[in-house]
Amino acid sequence: MTAQRQLKVGILGATGTVGQRFIKLLAQHPYMRTHVLGASARSAGHKYIDVVKWKQVTRVPQEVAQMVVEECVVNERWKQCDVVFSGLAEGDAGEIEASFRAAELPVFSNAKNHRRDPSTPLIVPLVNPSHLSVIPHQQAQHNLKKGFIVTNANCSTTGIVVPLKALEGAFGPLDCIVVTTMQAISGAGYPGVASFDIFDNVVPYIGSEEEKMEWETSKILGGVLPGEKGFDLHAESPLKISAACNRVPVLEGHTECVSVSFKRRPPPSPEQVKQALREFMCEAQSLGCPSAPKQAIVVHEEVDRPQPRLDRDDQDGAGVNVGRVRNCGVFDIKFVVLSNNVAIGAATSSIINAEIAHAKGMI
Amino acid sequence: MTAQRQLKVGILGATGTVGQRFIKLLAQHPYMRTHVLGASARSAGHKYIDVVKWKQVTRVPQEVAQMVVEECVVNERWKQCDVVFSGLAEGDAGEIEASFRAAELPVFSNAKNHRRDPSTPLIVPLVNPSHLSVIPHQQAQHNLKKGFIVTNANCSTTGIVVPLKALEGAFGPLDCIVVTTMQAISGAGYPGVASFDIFDNVVPYIGSEEEKMEWETSKILGGVLPGEKGFDLHAESPLKISAACNRVPVLEGHTECVSVSFKRRPPPSPEQVKQALREFMCEAQSLGCPSAPKQAIVVHEEVDRPQPRLDRDDQDGAGVNVGRVRNCGVFDIKFVVLSNNVAIGAATSSIINAEIAHAKGMI
Amino acid sequence: MTAQRQLKVGILGATGTVGQRFIKLLAQHPYMRTHVLGASARSAGHKYIDVVKWKQVTRVPQEVAQMVVEECVVNERWKQCDVVFSGLAEGDAGEIEASFRAAELPVFSNAKNHRRDPSTPLIVPLVNPSHLSVIPHQQAQHNLKKGFIVTNANCSTTGIVVPLKALEGAFGPLDCIVVTTMQAISGAGYPGVASFDIFDNVVPYIGSEEEKMEWETSKILGGVLPGEKGFDLHAESPLKISAACNRVPVLEGHTECVSVSFKRRPPPSPEQVKQALREFMCEAQSLGCPSAPKQAIVVHEEVDRPQPRLDRDDQDGAGVNVGRVRNCGVFDIKFVVLSNNVAIGAATSSIINAEIAHAKGMI
Amino acid sequence: MTAQRQLKVGILGATGTVGQRFIKLLAQHPYMRTHVLGASARSAGHKYIDVVKWKQVTRVPQEVAQMVVEECVVNERWKQCDVVFSGLAEGDAGEIEASFRAAELPVFSNAKNHRRDPSTPLIVPLVNPSHLSVIPHQQAQHNLKKGFIVTNANCSTTGIVVPLKALEGAFGPLDCIVVTTMQAISGAGYPGVASFDIFDNVVPYIGSEEEKMEWETSKILGGVLPGEKGFDLHAESPLKISAACNRVPVLEGHTECVSVSFKRRPPPSPEQVKQALREFMCEAQSLGCPSAPKQAIVVHEEVDRPQPRLDRDDQDGAGVNVGRVRNCGVFDIKFVVLSNNVAIGAATSSIINAEIAHAKGMI
Repeated sequence: MTAQRQLKVGILGATGTVGQRFIKLLAQHPYMRTHVLGASARSAGHKYIDVVKWKQVTRVPQEVAQMVVEECVVNERWKQCDVVFSGLAEGDAGEIEASFRAAELPVFSNAKNHRRDPSTPLIVPLVNPSHLSVIPHQQAQHNLKKGFIVTNANCSTTGIVVPLKALEGAFGPLDCIVVTTMQAISGAGYPGVASFDIFDNVVPYIGSEEEKMEWETSKILGGVLPGEKGFDLHAESPLKISAACNRVPVLEGHTECVSVSFKRRPPPSPEQVKQALREFMCEAQSLGCPSAPKQAIVVHEEVDRPQPRLDRDDQDGAGVNVGRVRNCGVFDIKFVVLSNNVAIGAATSSIINAEIAHAKGMI
Repeated sequence: MTAQRQLKVGILGATGTVGQRFIKLLAQHPYMRTHVLGASARSAGHKYIDVVKWKQVTRVPQEVAQMVVEECVVNERWKQCDVVFSGLAEGDAGEIEASFRAAELPVFSNAKNHRRDPSTPLIVPLVNPSHLSVIPHQQAQHNLKKGFIVTNANCSTTGIVVPLKALEGAFGPLDCIVVTTMQAISGAGYPGVASFDIFDNVVPYIGSEEEKMEWETSKILGGVLPGEKGFDLHAESPLKISAACNRVPVLEGHTECVSVSFKRRPPPSPEQVKQALREFMCEAQSLGCPSAPKQAIVVHEEVDRPQPRLDRDDQDGAGVNVGRVRNCGVFDIKFVVLSNNVAIGAATSSIINAEIAHAKGMI
Repeated sequence: MTAQRQLKVGILGATGTVGQRFIKLLAQHPYMRTHVLGASARSAGHKYIDVVKWKQVTRVPQEVAQMVVEECVVNERWKQCDVVFSGLAEGDAGEIEASFRAAELPVFSNAKNHRRDPSTPLIVPLVNPSHLSVIPHQQAQHNLKKGFIVTNANCSTTGIVVPLKALEGAFGPLDCIVVTTMQAISGAGYPGVASFDIFDNVVPYIGSEEEKMEWETSKILGGVLPGEKGFDLHAESPLKISAACNRVPVLEGHTECVSVSFKRRPPPSPEQVKQALREFMCEAQSLGCPSAPKQAIVVHEEVDRPQPRLDRDDQDGAGVNVGRVRNCGVFDIKFVVLSNNVAIGAATSSIINAEIAHAKGMI
Repeated sequence: MTAQRQLKVGILGATGTVGQRFIKLLAQHPYMRTHVLGASARSAGHKYIDVVKWKQVTRVPQEVAQMVVEECVVNERWKQCDVVFSGLAEGDAGEIEASFRAAELPVFSNAKNHRRDPSTPLIVPLVNPSHLSVIPHQQAQHNLKKGFIVTNANCSTTGIVVPLKALEGAFGPLDCIVVTTMQAISGAGYPGVASFDIFDNVVPYIGSEEEKMEWETSKILGGVLPGEKGFDLHAESPLKISAACNRVPVLEGHTECVSVSFKRRPPPSPEQVKQALREFMCEAQSLGCPSAPKQAIVVHEEVDRPQPRLDRDDQDGAGVNVGRVRNCGVFDIKFVVLSNNVAIGAATSSIINAEIAHAKGMI
């Protein structure tokens, strides 16, 4: 492998759950390395190891442990960054990310704040990197040359849009989607869900989650309007989608039961669906992004898979697992999706998005 | 309260999970008392306390602890019974239950073996006790005067048919039902699910469960054919139903996310649906069955209820909990059902079924 | 039963975890009834049902649901109380409880703030109600006639002192105690332990818990100094005690593995120990306190009991369970204790303490 | 690294939990490769992938998936092996392992059957590889030239003997040890613990476990008798040891609370103990065994570590974690040990034992 220029990376919200994931992933990245760690004013000025409540199963990377944390305020050090990742909580994310964009920095955000902006791409890297084409429009709007914001999707949305994209690619537009999720506690951050609430329990409600799944799916599966005026929100073939979101006592890995119907008659058979899912290739793969999974969708033939504990770490959680593809008594096809909410459902998505932008010469 | 004749009760499969539940419930019953305990040949001849691996949170009732266990073979003692409950596992249940029926004993079974018999009622006591009208037909078929078999439904079916019955009663036939279950480990009996399989996990498959839910729902919500020829399996207004069944790490209480569409246009609003569910009265209540819940369906207004740990023991698990009644983006209405799989989903159903039969003079 | 004067009860910290327990227990109490609910200024003025995040498995008692919450500041309504229970968190408890005592109210507190006061009894009701004799001394010190504070012990202490008291009563002073606890998450209140911290995990540390267990045990098992000068902290026969405290993924019920050695040689045999534990009677029982357990210590003979899920609710959690009494390879005897941390380990202790004080004419 | 001769490995009990671990570990081993898979007669003749119920979080290694399973009966293929690992369950292990030894094969067993044999070493590879010196004695006894059996310890024993060995090495003989374990469900194999038994629960009993811990510790920490007559069972400085063993709802990783007293007065301070643990080096390390951990004992300074979920996979579970080293109110020092029961507590021990024997020219 030839020597590659190392990209300097800044991490907003570096002490939080998603921030820790960025640090963990970047410690092994072939060409990105952590350059600035941003956190609250209370943590700034201290060594990372002294302020972080590290919750990962690997140790804090040595090169990061002794770094002094900065505030999330643009300064000379931040300006040296080639890429900024944001793991900020939604309270702060909106304004801080905008200020970093205004400083001509490319921001890849895991927060929800800018996802609905008409000029901000909402990208699941295995699905719609083509939406990056809107960035010049976003930059023009903000009088910027290099700065931009790219968001990735909510963790529960990410799981379903990958197989849905594969199905639309193979069989044409979908008509209806009904999805019920069983989401892991890690999706709620830290401290997140109180143990007293979720032990021996299911909580059949996650605030705003169902709306997010329904809306984000349309944006991600939709196209880009001509003239880069924004997104078409799947306008040509509107999706009917209904989500029911539940929290279950699982640490990592969102399991989702999906039923779909196609516009095309007759619909594809379960075997055809499985083949289409297996053959699905995404741009992140063809661009050679190092964090992209070898196989975007792993299709399981065992009757009781995928399962979160056994399958969430396959391919380091960068792909999506599908199983139990079968006929549905009401719609055409039903199946089970498992995606790793802390990997492809969060930090891994941001990183692959940046890898794609880098491969396309945008950063 | 005036003195009531005590009914003598025999319990087939008395050492198993469901059998223990029968014993626990009967210890407090106003007019039924345990008379014979039946178990395998290995346990027969021993005191109950010495052979049972008791797994209930209350102690073994004193009057039962010292009883000597019998084999599940009809003898004089069994013949003294007014009612026989069966908590047998499916391997043995079919033949044993038939032999007790042949001995002119009324058998109320929790096993699946006879549920699909064209002359055996499959009764969820809050839903279709009218199906008891088929019993004379069953008796004629077997040349019996008093013996019969009544089955109750699979635990995951029980939860949904109660609100579905209420909705059909108020708004006419349903068109489609899509249901995703999150089922407790106790539904699998003992030892049942290995901890290694379900810890920090979801298993998106339960053998035959989806087929049971789909088929049983049609039988239970359907009517009785004229001339007592059996059941119409909801033939006049066939239901399209699709179930996806999952095991989750919860001890007791099946949570089910349901989406329904009605044949009637316009469909009822969420408020109308909630009112209909609240007002639903069942025959078990009007007959004054002592084990029937005061309220068949408890409707929750809190945004995050029902939850298995908090709601499964309300009304001793004899009712059904419904919450999150709201519009569905694909169907008309969606909601969450919680039912106690070891109470109304199992032994409690058998007992109320017997109470109904008793009130109707059939035992 | 003859009519009994109803005692008016005030509850400090009524919306918290322990406060909810007080309300639940008092709803069924023969002669105490909830009269005032005290909470933070933010909740005051609102109906209880509207401000409480109720986490009990039974519904909010109807007579309490509509009560308007007061601040925890003495006023005319509070002064009407015969008894005040405190479920306050430690941040507020010290001063508020002192102000209620100063208003001549008897306060029974579950908080730790006053436990080490030399004139405040620290009473586990099954163990040392005789320590109430210090109250006149406390009142003299504060120039009070009726007001006083009685505390109950930390939930992990409560479990062990009951059998230790029984052993000291039967066999004379103990020499050494080594105890390792496996404590339930409910011991940490709400929201308490983050699910992310305790799922599939053991946390081998609970702040200050080991010190509490070691110190409180000496005070509780000790005597009262002559002239009511305070407590002797087991001074005549000092206990060596070492505690290791762990949080485990269990909802309710603290399990504790205890090894003890006696001063007396030869030490008692396991059979003698079991008999002494079974025969242990406490003053709360002889005084006929309605919330006292029928049997202070339930001794299990099964090799694998007690277990929190199966045994924590026996006697409504008011007693203590002991099992696996056997010889110890290092000390004399080892055994397992299970106590319900939210019952006898918290609110139930306060209530029985008040019942004892009432029986003795102190309130 | 120079090319190294590859050792051919046979695995007895290859479809079981421990067998799967062997396969997983060997797939990455620098010089051992799986050559024969042995299982029950029922599985023999079938491809491994078709008969195994694979429960690991990585996929079945490709080179193993298609191998045809053999019976556990010595044949030509088995005789080609350089090493045989046994993950057999205790019912079969004794005789089968003996028959493989009789065929002049070196057997490294995880089963308990031969652990108490006076001529069979019981080796925790980080502690007592010197016990391999007994093998010539074992071979003489059985008239063998190359065949032998080496066992490794019970998973709960393994965790404590590593730090105990380090302490004895640094500070001389120990006097007393009291240990309470909180053991993971994976320690019981598959299906092992029923979820219904351990959910929201602690089971304060594991059959024979306490006896194993007490006896095995003496053998492992003891020496070899002169003339290779067997083991001295720590005869010169007998250990008093008492174990209390509990099953807790944790997937992997045994947590153990240990209190120790030394014979030497004054005893070492906590700081001295921590230093000795950190500096502890074992022969497996100095021999360069590829599966040995870099650091035998990792000492944690954080007040709440080690924790099973966060620390069990450090160093692939090949080392032992110690934390909370502090003074004990009854003994001298107490601390917490965490060891990975499925790694160093099982298959990893067998493999390092074989690596040591290989480095010493014994295989």
